[in-house]
Amino acid sequence: MTLAAARTDETTWVRRLIDDWAEAARASDLDGIMAAYTPDILSFDATIQLQFKGAEAYRRHWQFCLEMCAGPMVLEVHDLEIEAGDDVAFGHYLLRCGGTGEDGKEQVGWMRVTVCCRTRGDRWRVAHEHFSVPFDLASGKALLDLQP
Amino acid sequence: MTLAAARTDETTWVRRLIDDWAEAARASDLDGIMAAYTPDILSFDATIQLQFKGAEAYRRHWQFCLEMCAGPMVLEVHDLEIEAGDDVAFGHYLLRCGGTGEDGKEQVGWMRVTVCCRTRGDRWRVAHEHFSVPFDLASGKALLDLQP
Repeated sequence: MTLAAARTDETTWVRRLIDDWAEAARASDLDGIMAAYTPDILSFDATIQLQFKGAEAYRRHWQFCLEMCAGPMVLEVHDLEIEAGDDVAFGHYLLRCGGTGEDGKEQVGWMRVTVCCRTRGDRWRVAHEHFSVPFDLASGKALLDLQP
Repeated sequence: MTLAAARTDETTWVRRLIDDWAEAARASDLDGIMAAYTPDILSFDATIQLQFKGAEAYRRHWQFCLEMCAGPMVLEVHDLEIEAGDDVAFGHYLLRCGGTGEDGKEQVGWMRVTVCCRTRGDRWRVAHEHFSVPFDLASGKALLDLQP
């Protein structure tokens, strides 16, 4: 196999990792979500804390998020780009996400996501993740209504 | 050179890239800042827009930021961790940053930063960057006072 072909292969695996994670998140499947992460995952999430260190802390945070988002979840990965080496890779995408309010209306916004991955010969996992929305300098408010 | 030694070497180069970038940013040296980035840099910055595509757009944004932050700049890289492959790497750190107000008082806060790098045989550069602060779910306000 050529180097280029091997790299295409790794990119495909990282893409599948993100696809599987998104499917698990849409299904509120906590074990499926956590299967994407390394035990030493270091996460910068969009809300509450500066960082979450390790799978156990991140799992508790995800549980809180899933309980908060009752009802059908909107979670769409857009503009995903991946750069994969032999055993280190990164990807970034825009996430259209939210849920359905009690009035049945969709409440969705756009976030930015970066995923940093590694493989140790077995399968790729996310070792670092960064979710966020930008904020407005004047008001200090999160800009939840921006459109790509 | 063993593989482990080669990897240590690459990690050192990525660390130097971030050190040089930080030094340029502290000096408000726009050319020095931009030297860290690939021409196709895709940036998720903490403020204003969802994303900045390409070095030209990102340079304009940096120019705006530097003009906004008159006076001595605080910019400290903390808890930097790097994972480097042969030609793809990522790093994450907490950034203590801000400036000095007209009253001479420091106005600083903590941000989260992810840098995703590549090399094409010459030197490492940042191909993707993500700066952010988390926001409070209840108020929708950026949490600018969080401490690590």
